[in-house]
Amino acid sequence: MINPTIELLKSHRSIRKFTDQPIEQDVLHELIRAGQGAATSSFLQGTTVIQVTRPEVRARIAELAGNQSYIIDAPEYLVFCADVRRSSQCCEMHGEDATEGMTEQFIIATVDVALMAQNVVIAAESMGLGICYIGAIRNNPALTSELLQLPHGVYPVFGLCLGYPDQDPEIKPRLPVSVVLKKDVYDDAEDLDSITDYDAHIREYYRTRTSNNKAVSWSEQMSGLLSRESRPHMRDFLAQRGFTMR
Amino acid sequence: MINPTIELLKSHRSIRKFTDQPIEQDVLHELIRAGQGAATSSFLQGTTVIQVTRPEVRARIAELAGNQSYIIDAPEYLVFCADVRRSSQCCEMHGEDATEGMTEQFIIATVDVALMAQNVVIAAESMGLGICYIGAIRNNPALTSELLQLPHGVYPVFGLCLGYPDQDPEIKPRLPVSVVLKKDVYDDAEDLDSITDYDAHIREYYRTRTSNNKAVSWSEQMSGLLSRESRPHMRDFLAQRGFTMR
Repeated sequence: MINPTIELLKSHRSIRKFTDQPIEQDVLHELIRAGQGAATSSFLQGTTVIQVTRPEVRARIAELAGNQSYIIDAPEYLVFCADVRRSSQCCEMHGEDATEGMTEQFIIATVDVALMAQNVVIAAESMGLGICYIGAIRNNPALTSELLQLPHGVYPVFGLCLGYPDQDPEIKPRLPVSVVLKKDVYDDAEDLDSITDYDAHIREYYRTRTSNNKAVSWSEQMSGLLSRESRPHMRDFLAQRGFTMR
Repeated sequence: MINPTIELLKSHRSIRKFTDQPIEQDVLHELIRAGQGAATSSFLQGTTVIQVTRPEVRARIAELAGNQSYIIDAPEYLVFCADVRRSSQCCEMHGEDATEGMTEQFIIATVDVALMAQNVVIAAESMGLGICYIGAIRNNPALTSELLQLPHGVYPVFGLCLGYPDQDPEIKPRLPVSVVLKKDVYDDAEDLDSITDYDAHIREYYRTRTSNNKAVSWSEQMSGLLSRESRPHMRDFLAQRGFTMR
């Protein structure tokens, strides 16, 4: 049942330290082509990828993302953007008016981006590359959009660092399958017990892993994450860029 | 450079006709575990998957999705839900109040779902299974949520049909890499020419493929898609379920 592709999918961990070995441009193109193979809602193909090569732009983006140095050091840094501009312009080509501010367009473009990016990631990892997604691109999406000259109808969903790994971190244990897969209805009667066990497992993982040890459980992390406001600017930013309504 | 995983990623096409061969439950669990291997924002693990086995629920969901019969016929039908309920409940466990209505939580959970689903899809296809994403689950997300007893803080992002293929459709040609990958800034000066060429290519693809032939270009499809309102109920639905604000 298990095959090398499934082994690969289960062996992912974020890589934040890379060797100096560059990624050839034809390798990058191959990764993008593999990314494009993913399903796309209504054939939208709603992703544009910006390859950020200018050191001063990388430095600025790293600063906006809370000084994550691997954004500067990674051989490649890609910004994955949701793009309904390209498809909206097709309306003009055919004498139609494009609609704007639809939550649904926002969802299909955002999902398109994630599906394509995950294909790029799997392709990269199958070649021995390592990756790290950067959600902190949304710390200041307006300035990022300015730096990358993103037009109206395009928004940066996340960044992606790519390169050959210069570290070998452990795989982080995931929630039990029983918690994430439900039969017919959402029944979480036993989840609290499962999460308590999982908390102990995660606490042990953080305590014993080879670097960046800490003393925290999963539910403590989630409590910290979900109890504070996160990027409240996103709502207005998305509305300004033609995604969703205020 | 090319390897079997990359070949697999590039050979995806939606499968809408399946043999009767069932998918064993331990195979499904293996697919879910492979899915969980995907990156997850802030370790949220914001996905819950509902395996829909009851024929009457399948039939109702197929009806809501515009009578897509493969939702009934597929050996498995999974509904991928974005879930911030599980993590929000961790706030309660640790004496914190969960925030609600954050666009950012909506984005990270939706992206989590798509990354995990794409891993499930790649794992499935690596085993010879075929899949079809079903965005039409969002035609009536409120009724779907009722059927699956989804609680507040959980929303159905898309469905997924799974089974052994009983058809062998062609791969749909994608936009040129030059259109989707940009260096440093969003420069679309040459995209209109590329799209015009691509339109001819897609028109020929639709004209000559083995089934469901039609006479339409990509830009015509996009013009049709982006010029009409699509699922305007999504905005209020998401607000009601604790995602995003009205």
